Amino acid sequence: MQAFELTQLAHELLVDYADFIDSEKFDDWLGLFSEDARYDVIPRENVEQGLRVSLILCSNKAQLRDRINALREANEYNLHYDRHLVSSVKAKMTEHGVVEISANYAVFQTNLEGQSKLFSVGRYQDLARLEKGRLVLFDKKVIVDTFSVPTLLATPL
Amino acid sequence: MQAFELTQLAHELLVDYADFIDSEKFDDWLGLFSEDARYDVIPRENVEQGLRVSLILCSNKAQLRDRINALREANEYNLHYDRHLVSSVKAKMTEHGVVEISANYAVFQTNLEGQSKLFSVGRYQDLARLEKGRLVLFDKKVIVDTFSVPTLLATPL
Amino acid sequence: MQAFELTQLAHELLVDYADFIDSEKFDDWLGLFSEDARYDVIPRENVEQGLRVSLILCSNKAQLRDRINALREANEYNLHYDRHLVSSVKAKMTEHGVVEISANYAVFQTNLEGQSKLFSVGRYQDLARLEKGRLVLFDKKVIVDTFSVPTLLATPL
Repeated sequence: MQAFELTQLAHELLVDYADFIDSEKFDDWLGLFSEDARYDVIPRENVEQGLRVSLILCSNKAQLRDRINALREANEYNLHYDRHLVSSVKAKMTEHGVVEISANYAVFQTNLEGQSKLFSVGRYQDLARLEKGRLVLFDKKVIVDTFSVPTLLATPL
Repeated sequence: MQAFELTQLAHELLVDYADFIDSEKFDDWLGLFSEDARYDVIPRENVEQGLRVSLILCSNKAQLRDRINALREANEYNLHYDRHLVSSVKAKMTEHGVVEISANYAVFQTNLEGQSKLFSVGRYQDLARLEKGRLVLFDKKVIVDTFSVPTLLATPL
Repeated sequence: MQAFELTQLAHELLVDYADFIDSEKFDDWLGLFSEDARYDVIPRENVEQGLRVSLILCSNKAQLRDRINALREANEYNLHYDRHLVSSVKAKMTEHGVVEISANYAVFQTNLEGQSKLFSVGRYQDLARLEKGRLVLFDKKVIVDTFSVPTLLATPL
């Protein structure tokens, strides 16, 4: 597989990733992860200081599924729309068939009055495997620049 | 045509689309549409409730041209710069040669004092046809998350 | 070289460009420029009025290196994180092997309290040469929409 094809697959993965969150298709979103997938939201400050303290950590897909169910209930009281912008997508095939993917994101939230604001910016540092022609996430790291977010728990990033 | 080539053409279309608005080349912008093109700006809320009430609806290119002329006059009193960020570009060839394109956008506006702010976020859901090696828009849907925009009429999105 | 390959190389250049600033790898960032490279930050207003008055102008890489050293000292007192979103990347091979690259950017800054805000939006208009399979910048123009930025000097854009 050529480099641009791998980048294209990573681009497609992140298009779906953002779209499934923004359109609240959380079952489809879960479908992007392997059963053993980690999902980890870490403040950038901690990463740079070598601290491995997460804001959110799911060690497998069952935990991630529980979390999504909790979010669905919470979101009945926190009505808003999400919109992801994702850029700087980079993908690299490493040893053992592991694909490293990185990208920058900004998430904007819009309230019921139709007012939008910046919600979170940060970076994805993901590991995926190629399965049947598509990339499947088995380690998703969301490194958040924005960590002072009172409603952080209301949305996957 | 391979999938990545179609995505590349859609990317190029949206690069021009954003650039022509941002640099106020509205004749070039109109050139991206077919004569029978619809241009539709709809609040996301309405789309999700199945309501087809548009904020702006042009049913053909003549209407779109009229609208642009009106904007040009209005913008003499509402001086600002626009800047589009567009990501998550996806393109799919469907039946009858129709190409479905989707993407997320954020538009930032800058006033005469050089201060920038978020103006609108949302999603493009477009239909285009392949003509002489490029994509021509015949149905442009701008689904706006941000609908509480007093100056909404001042800029195509 | 085909058009999509050139666009891919330009994309890779701008991914590195943004990443090296955001992660403060300024030596790597300097490595993206040729020795004779110009780096120019100009308000959009000036560009559109045909005025060539820059906010920042480095006429070669030595000047750019000096500037980076100054920034490193200044940033000890202006602690923040940068995050670039870059889209609408376009690349065109012109005569004499010069590659024209354009893109839109938004930079978000996050303070020590973890609060993020929009810092600058604008456009890159760059010239590069193809050297050993990668693009090397020899003329970087950052056309800033946002020019009322008190802390402008604290970060390369």
